[in-house]
Amino acid sequence: MSKEKYMELAITLARSTIGQTSPNPSVGAVVVKEGQIIGMGSHLKAGKEHAEVYALDQAGDQSVGADIYVTLEPCAHHGKTPPCANLLVERKVKKAYIATVDPNPKVAGKGIEILRNAGIEVEVGLMEEEARKINEMFFYYMNHKQPFVTMKAAMTLDGKIATASGDSKWITSEQARADVHQERARHDAILVGANTVKHDNPQLTVRLPQGGKNPIRVILSTKLSIQADRHVLNHEAPTWIVCGQQADAEAFQKKYPHIKVIQMDTDEMELEEVLKALGEHGIQSLYVEGGSRVHHSFLEKQLFQECHWYIAPKLLGGADAIPVIGGKSPSKMADALDVTIDSMEQVGTDIKIIARPKGGN
Amino acid sequence: MSKEKYMELAITLARSTIGQTSPNPSVGAVVVKEGQIIGMGSHLKAGKEHAEVYALDQAGDQSVGADIYVTLEPCAHHGKTPPCANLLVERKVKKAYIATVDPNPKVAGKGIEILRNAGIEVEVGLMEEEARKINEMFFYYMNHKQPFVTMKAAMTLDGKIATASGDSKWITSEQARADVHQERARHDAILVGANTVKHDNPQLTVRLPQGGKNPIRVILSTKLSIQADRHVLNHEAPTWIVCGQQADAEAFQKKYPHIKVIQMDTDEMELEEVLKALGEHGIQSLYVEGGSRVHHSFLEKQLFQECHWYIAPKLLGGADAIPVIGGKSPSKMADALDVTIDSMEQVGTDIKIIARPKGGN
Amino acid sequence: MSKEKYMELAITLARSTIGQTSPNPSVGAVVVKEGQIIGMGSHLKAGKEHAEVYALDQAGDQSVGADIYVTLEPCAHHGKTPPCANLLVERKVKKAYIATVDPNPKVAGKGIEILRNAGIEVEVGLMEEEARKINEMFFYYMNHKQPFVTMKAAMTLDGKIATASGDSKWITSEQARADVHQERARHDAILVGANTVKHDNPQLTVRLPQGGKNPIRVILSTKLSIQADRHVLNHEAPTWIVCGQQADAEAFQKKYPHIKVIQMDTDEMELEEVLKALGEHGIQSLYVEGGSRVHHSFLEKQLFQECHWYIAPKLLGGADAIPVIGGKSPSKMADALDVTIDSMEQVGTDIKIIARPKGGN
Amino acid sequence: MSKEKYMELAITLARSTIGQTSPNPSVGAVVVKEGQIIGMGSHLKAGKEHAEVYALDQAGDQSVGADIYVTLEPCAHHGKTPPCANLLVERKVKKAYIATVDPNPKVAGKGIEILRNAGIEVEVGLMEEEARKINEMFFYYMNHKQPFVTMKAAMTLDGKIATASGDSKWITSEQARADVHQERARHDAILVGANTVKHDNPQLTVRLPQGGKNPIRVILSTKLSIQADRHVLNHEAPTWIVCGQQADAEAFQKKYPHIKVIQMDTDEMELEEVLKALGEHGIQSLYVEGGSRVHHSFLEKQLFQECHWYIAPKLLGGADAIPVIGGKSPSKMADALDVTIDSMEQVGTDIKIIARPKGGN
Ligand SMILES: [Zn+2]
Ligand SMILES: [Zn+2]
Ligand SMILES: [Zn+2]
Ligand SMILES: [Zn+2]
Repeated sequence: MSKEKYMELAITLARSTIGQTSPNPSVGAVVVKEGQIIGMGSHLKAGKEHAEVYALDQAGDQSVGADIYVTLEPCAHHGKTPPCANLLVERKVKKAYIATVDPNPKVAGKGIEILRNAGIEVEVGLMEEEARKINEMFFYYMNHKQPFVTMKAAMTLDGKIATASGDSKWITSEQARADVHQERARHDAILVGANTVKHDNPQLTVRLPQGGKNPIRVILSTKLSIQADRHVLNHEAPTWIVCGQQADAEAFQKKYPHIKVIQMDTDEMELEEVLKALGEHGIQSLYVEGGSRVHHSFLEKQLFQECHWYIAPKLLGGADAIPVIGGKSPSKMADALDVTIDSMEQVGTDIKIIARPKGGN
Repeated sequence: MSKEKYMELAITLARSTIGQTSPNPSVGAVVVKEGQIIGMGSHLKAGKEHAEVYALDQAGDQSVGADIYVTLEPCAHHGKTPPCANLLVERKVKKAYIATVDPNPKVAGKGIEILRNAGIEVEVGLMEEEARKINEMFFYYMNHKQPFVTMKAAMTLDGKIATASGDSKWITSEQARADVHQERARHDAILVGANTVKHDNPQLTVRLPQGGKNPIRVILSTKLSIQADRHVLNHEAPTWIVCGQQADAEAFQKKYPHIKVIQMDTDEMELEEVLKALGEHGIQSLYVEGGSRVHHSFLEKQLFQECHWYIAPKLLGGADAIPVIGGKSPSKMADALDVTIDSMEQVGTDIKIIARPKGGN
Repeated sequence: MSKEKYMELAITLARSTIGQTSPNPSVGAVVVKEGQIIGMGSHLKAGKEHAEVYALDQAGDQSVGADIYVTLEPCAHHGKTPPCANLLVERKVKKAYIATVDPNPKVAGKGIEILRNAGIEVEVGLMEEEARKINEMFFYYMNHKQPFVTMKAAMTLDGKIATASGDSKWITSEQARADVHQERARHDAILVGANTVKHDNPQLTVRLPQGGKNPIRVILSTKLSIQADRHVLNHEAPTWIVCGQQADAEAFQKKYPHIKVIQMDTDEMELEEVLKALGEHGIQSLYVEGGSRVHHSFLEKQLFQECHWYIAPKLLGGADAIPVIGGKSPSKMADALDVTIDSMEQVGTDIKIIARPKGGN
Repeated sequence: MSKEKYMELAITLARSTIGQTSPNPSVGAVVVKEGQIIGMGSHLKAGKEHAEVYALDQAGDQSVGADIYVTLEPCAHHGKTPPCANLLVERKVKKAYIATVDPNPKVAGKGIEILRNAGIEVEVGLMEEEARKINEMFFYYMNHKQPFVTMKAAMTLDGKIATASGDSKWITSEQARADVHQERARHDAILVGANTVKHDNPQLTVRLPQGGKNPIRVILSTKLSIQADRHVLNHEAPTWIVCGQQADAEAFQKKYPHIKVIQMDTDEMELEEVLKALGEHGIQSLYVEGGSRVHHSFLEKQLFQECHWYIAPKLLGGADAIPVIGGKSPSKMADALDVTIDSMEQVGTDIKIIARPKGGN
């Protein structure tokens, strides 16, 4: 096999763990000697072994003089495990193929430095693009200290997410809804507005036949007013509520000690500040599930990195129906935000379009 | 070549004239003898020779004992030209491959009958689906006596066709707009509401580098009130105005004798009646270019056969912006109209989606 | 439609007559005015109207100021019909799109000159490659005065065309054999060696369900010795026999007056001289159907332009079986002729490979 | 992820080790709990841990109640490692998805029995075809006790493997030759005839940029006569020589103690017996690299499972050149062996065709 084939295998290993390693990135490693694979591994979950550890353990004594393929620069800092860069040195590998440098400032080239100082040959950049894509949200977070934001909506072919009276059950097909649950599972947190909680009373949990990790439910509620019977107050998944300065956080916390309250220091919540606060609390990826006004806030400030539109083959009609993005229209069409279409695919009977702000990160 | 290959050629010939033969259908013919093509032709324009005439003239004496491939049943009625069915008999062809029967009640099997009575072998149905598709709007008109209606709109990725203040220049790319001009050229008529005329002052003509036939401009104006400076009143293309019973058609006609006025016999114009009237005036295909409320009328009554959405990679936002389909929302999402997606393609930087009412004609 | 679309239609028209116009090339013409096709035609057979004549006749008076799309330069010489270039001038077309210049020295730019002198705008080269491909054999003949040679064989997956005892029935599938009949029909002549006539007694005619023109049967027989019962001596298709200087052509001709004898002026027939002679007798395209030794002669002198291998999914084995190319092997593998694979397709259960000498014409 | 996705990952893991686990099969395992992968592994080499061991070790305590996906039935016999079926029971997995039953008579359902008896839910057959394909040669060997035979040849487009004088350097491109080295590496043994050793003096080793395991070199030499300077006698890879009864094996062994001699008990070597003997010595897969006569023997007795033809775009010619399959031709074309084409791909400038005897295993 060629070096590209070995790295491709490492990338497949890394990709298989997307959504289960946060706050760590997904990483895969393959150890090769004389054309034979002698070890491979993936980092499976924060707190567990790094990919290199599994791969080198399987290789055993054979690692001496072997090549290792890793999708991300080996770590250089003493965390829950000793630094992998040192392990590679210790196990006397001959050459390391590294797809991409670690953006984590604690690593950022130091891993490579350790290897080179120890005389290990290092080749950086093999299949870099594919490797970066796997940890795109992690990379974004490391560079911006804010979560990577994905705006999601299910709408009709004429851009409506609900009737005038708020009915939205069901716009999209079962397959599209299952796809949404997959997406939820690979995000750290889901965000909705207080209005959505009030009118739709969503559960915001992952319900998939094979199971899946529940993300944190983040509710924007300026006044911290959530009806007691709302699902988001239950214990099925962690819930965080972001509120304004005036809200009585203390009283709320006494009533709902299992819920985290993040209080902003302004009355009106500035979205950019909210994202910063979520970033400080470690949220790397945020899945925004509307509604109409929340989407408008994210659009207005251009605070999203991706939008996922699930478009159902239905025409609703109605100037009074709820549009996918509400709020106040700009006065000129030229002021609309240009996006690029990343992909367009059939999901069940619906169309899933992924778009990104043009020229965005 | 196989018989499919010969019919495919006849279909290519027919397809090349789509949009230029109305009120006649597009037809192609190929004459074959001993594996060689000895004649071929297309009907080019109402009033000109039928496809069979050109093809048999080229064949000359060789037509005796030859096979003919035609995309539509040869005509049986004396129109501007003598019946083609008789011509085939006269020219002593041996076998006729006919893709599809003519839905025109003046023909409808009579052409085939003439052939069979004269001892010509007839095979009907070879590549019928492709052949019907070419004249889909003609077939619809023959069966329903109303035009085939295509609803067209250019919108943002969030379903808006204009800002709150009505600005819509330009949502879609130049290529998408050129595609719209192609579509106009292949329709008998374009329909817009009086509002669109008032606010956008469109020309509704075909502007293509290689030229193209202008369709009739049909304006819905209950009160027959069109400002004098509007383009649709010029002589660049024929204009028809459909108005209600109360409108003063006489005064209008005196002022604009070059414009046809179709007056309905009710105050409010019933859309179904409008379509019937257009059908009676020979309009086989109608391209509805909005606006928002006009689309709603067509949706509400389910009076369209196709919708063409040009979706630009742009997000506008605004609950007050103009949605692609306005009017009044149904109260339940379950009351939305189910459609099927026929095709989805990239046109310039935009996406063109063609959809049809589910279970529709 | 764009100008490419109109030329594509002209090319489709031309392509439909491949194999039936020899010695003339296949040509298509489309006349367009204001975005509408007002005439189209194909040259169907030597002696019949040229494509431009049909197309302009259909256009009638409308041709004034129209555009014409032709796949080959309009003719400039008075042949069986008056020159088409003059016709375009007379009919006052405004612009001529010409895919490719006519290689025929009688035309070769003179047609274009006539048009330009008359003030007609001329654009040469639109879709030239596709247009040349249609008349590839005609172009080759015009440039070399020799036929374009295609070497054809049906063989097993181990390169054998017959068993040691000469049995070869049937190597390939019915579909592959039908494909061979198609190929025969589009060539002016088929060539086989005397040995093939002796052992296989082939008919060398076209047998297709829809019929097809029989090419001339050319037999290489140095001594003019063909057994009286061989099919090639019958009247089903024209037969030409090429023989050496010593053969008694006179006696043979007396016996078989319907057969043409071409006598070379050497004892051993030089293949290059044979091709020149066939060229002088107007053969533009030659389909060489072996056998093994004949193929070797064509390979040795590199006197072929294409080879068509039909490879059956069969393994025969046998150093004594008949290989697709016999004769004497070069001593070095490096002396093999390099070819390029043009295409590879499934025909029935067989594989059809088309290859060409590398760097060939 | 769906269960198919998890099994696909297990299959990717298994596939990555093709060619390095013999005499064991390639196996992959993935352990999943609540939608998260908690362990994965591949069997890397005979003597090392089975795939299930790595996967369950990574899972640790989490394996209780988890699902495991394995590409092959877990083993049930005490070999170099304790039975994996017992390990699954011990680690209390809840459900086992098994792609295919182990054909090894020592396992063959017993692993599944152990699981079911212990109350583990078992689903057999998920993606079975893909899983079987990975270990196709292993399955064949288990069922037939003979190696799976692949006949390989590099030839010209006219079916020749060498000129009359035996020159064959180089028929195919570098890429095709690299592909051959890949194929060698994934076989247990390569077989050539004594003639090939005499004339070509091949090394029969794997020479790839990233390295690769050398297969055993098997030489058929009835009389055990190999010139002393031939590469196959060196120590670079193991060599086995199969000879007839009359050969002086003892003398040879004294001279070349590092070479294994397998002596048949007949004078002429019966190919079927040779394959049985190789099977008894543990050879599961055999790559036959000719020459012409050796291929004929395998064809004649239909003793091969696949043939790999590398066809170069070259025409050599010559009834005296060496054909890919020599020997004696059958008298009738109908006696050729029917094969089916499995695949056809471009490798460098050459075509690689993989075929199999029709109706074969
Ligand atoms: Zn690490
Ligand atoms: Zn007619
Ligand atoms: Zn001409
Ligand atoms: Zn095991």
